[in-house]
Amino acid sequence: MTRIVQKFGGSSLATPDRIRSVAARVVGARRTGAQVLVVVSAMGDTTDDLVVLSREVNPNPPAREMDMLLSAGERISIALTAMAIAAHGVEAVSLTGSQAGILTDDTHGAAKIQGITGARVTDNLAEGKVVIVAGFQGVSPRSKEITTLGRGGSDTSAVALAAALGGDVAEIYTDVPGVMTADPRIVPEAQKLEEISYQEMMELAAGGAGVLVPRAVEVGRRYGVPIHVRSSFTDSPGTWIRKATEMERMEQAIVSGIAHDSSEAKVTLREVPDQPGVAASIFEPLAEASVNVDMIVQNVSREGLSDISFTIPKSSMEWAEEVVRLVGQHVKASGVEIRSDIAKVSLIGAGMKTEPGVAARVFRTLGEAGINIEMISTSTIRISCVVEQSQMQKAVQVLHREFRPPLIREERGA
Amino acid sequence: MTRIVQKFGGSSLATPDRIRSVAARVVGARRTGAQVLVVVSAMGDTTDDLVVLSREVNPNPPAREMDMLLSAGERISIALTAMAIAAHGVEAVSLTGSQAGILTDDTHGAAKIQGITGARVTDNLAEGKVVIVAGFQGVSPRSKEITTLGRGGSDTSAVALAAALGGDVAEIYTDVPGVMTADPRIVPEAQKLEEISYQEMMELAAGGAGVLVPRAVEVGRRYGVPIHVRSSFTDSPGTWIRKATEMERMEQAIVSGIAHDSSEAKVTLREVPDQPGVAASIFEPLAEASVNVDMIVQNVSREGLSDISFTIPKSSMEWAEEVVRLVGQHVKASGVEIRSDIAKVSLIGAGMKTEPGVAARVFRTLGEAGINIEMISTSTIRISCVVEQSQMQKAVQVLHREFRPPLIREERGA
Repeated sequence: MTRIVQKFGGSSLATPDRIRSVAARVVGARRTGAQVLVVVSAMGDTTDDLVVLSREVNPNPPAREMDMLLSAGERISIALTAMAIAAHGVEAVSLTGSQAGILTDDTHGAAKIQGITGARVTDNLAEGKVVIVAGFQGVSPRSKEITTLGRGGSDTSAVALAAALGGDVAEIYTDVPGVMTADPRIVPEAQKLEEISYQEMMELAAGGAGVLVPRAVEVGRRYGVPIHVRSSFTDSPGTWIRKATEMERMEQAIVSGIAHDSSEAKVTLREVPDQPGVAASIFEPLAEASVNVDMIVQNVSREGLSDISFTIPKSSMEWAEEVVRLVGQHVKASGVEIRSDIAKVSLIGAGMKTEPGVAARVFRTLGEAGINIEMISTSTIRISCVVEQSQMQKAVQVLHREFRPPLIREERGA
Repeated sequence: MTRIVQKFGGSSLATPDRIRSVAARVVGARRTGAQVLVVVSAMGDTTDDLVVLSREVNPNPPAREMDMLLSAGERISIALTAMAIAAHGVEAVSLTGSQAGILTDDTHGAAKIQGITGARVTDNLAEGKVVIVAGFQGVSPRSKEITTLGRGGSDTSAVALAAALGGDVAEIYTDVPGVMTADPRIVPEAQKLEEISYQEMMELAAGGAGVLVPRAVEVGRRYGVPIHVRSSFTDSPGTWIRKATEMERMEQAIVSGIAHDSSEAKVTLREVPDQPGVAASIFEPLAEASVNVDMIVQNVSREGLSDISFTIPKSSMEWAEEVVRLVGQHVKASGVEIRSDIAKVSLIGAGMKTEPGVAARVFRTLGEAGINIEMISTSTIRISCVVEQSQMQKAVQVLHREFRPPLIREERGA
């Protein structure tokens, strides 16, 4: 029997009307005979509203209590979704993360899923009921505490449930048609991708494509769960994320998509004396302070001195800045420079591996558009450039025009 | 060591400001060295708002999902209260009803507490932490489902926790100074009672005094938990509810308080042929339809025919009316009359037992004020009269003036 996991985010559930639309879609899927497991986020802005409330009673609330608080959001949406489905005469039962057996470690606010027991889920599915599970939350078997999974947690819950309970697909419903070759607000001619590999999707997500968090894609990749990102407003197919070997196209696009990210700041430590272990001296204190370092670039040494640049989330600037300045003193940098007016533009495509000269074309394209590249970082299927934030949009546009994703084979001389 | 239970209702927690005030009070109690267990309701109108939302997705939502939905309300308030207490540097931990071991039957929406295990509560109290427990909710060990206790459930949770865990007092914080001799909005000279017996308080509550539900008082009575009803806005003592034998006054007031209730409607079955079992034929079908019948009056039979009147909640009129009309046909009543423009006024006082002629004075007082009595019902410590709703306020006023509660001894001839 087909077992489908359908995940609906907060904007798909923001009003009673939208909850009724979600219910109609779920009931449609159930009536095809499939078993349907629904994963929901909190309604609309509920989570943000709860965060604001918490800050008003305690500017620095205990993480355990934040999880207690935020987990109320999905509790509301699972119950309302179950009621809306029941209104169609279809049996539905809501389960919290804990009731669904989503077991996590005990890192409040950023818990990792360790396993899913899921007996209540599968028992209810077997009885023909639609089961609605609260995304974003779980329970730590060690501390017996409610935990939340952090950003993008509901997507991760959905893919993990599909993985653990033998789901045939994890459908991620969203307010866009699927995974796009670029942000359509920046590139009007951006296209919806019909399919993309897990690895490319992870790079796109890491590059700033907000449609899915990398950890959800990673769970899908590890357990081979096909993920279908699609619109909650239409019945059109969206984008399938699957193994490269299972994709329908035999050859892969040079560039599948272009992502951008203006959420990071760039830190440069000037003229750091070269010595063994200097990189560790810089990045260990940052890791201890829970600052996520993304790109790291160390340029060629001149007279035993290196400039070291890296990017960190602007959201952690407040506490990162002090750490960075202390680190700078410790490694005897001649200066520390922090710039937040930068952005990262990333081209992702598995076809890059077999297409020579892609990086050179990226640099030339940006150069011809008068865009200065401040940092470069590459993997086998990605090229990322840091540019001035004011030039980010233009960079995405010229690169999209140049590479025309998801073009497979270059029409040379065209 | 002193162990205090403090219960705060929705209006005491309606805004972040008020939650901070509650936290300051709790911290004050904790700093006296006492163990403090806090029980909270959902913030302000949260429960009502959730009910409205539920009706928008399903006019007749499954009771199990209503409980899942409503239990989110206290989850929010326990977490925020714990955070606000933690902001004072006092360790605090929130527990859901289920985590606190509040075990109930599985009647969704009106569950009865069967027992409280409470190990997590007492362990945390022993570690010096303030424990904040979600009122109104529990878990059924049989069905493993979240349940809610129905109206006044948080008061009941608080008193039951004090009973099960050896609390020295259950403090019920409210927006009035304590239990009043009458509603001050109707009787400006109404006084706060310093103390009242469980039995009188149950009659007052049953008579419509909204300050506490009868079931919470009943739990206090059964387990001998002193209940202190007091204002959340001042430090003044409120009203102590305790055993009559433990009250400070040796003699009891003739009338401790006057309650009123306009939430009921009066049903009269006219000229019902007298026959054995006729009362059961009338009230069994109503009980099966979950209609709470309050006062029942059957007048003297004339020629083998009786008029039978009783009151039922206006809120159950919708489904009760059809049952009542069928019952009327079944017992061959000549007519069925339903009136919702009535109100019940009740005088409660343990001193009535030893003071002759109280009932007669009630009837004379109302008569002299031109108020017609439509039904009368009495117990040893209560006299209730049903009057026209438009005359309810006047009835309460004249009776308060006549009996001057909580007067102990009548100054005869005064």
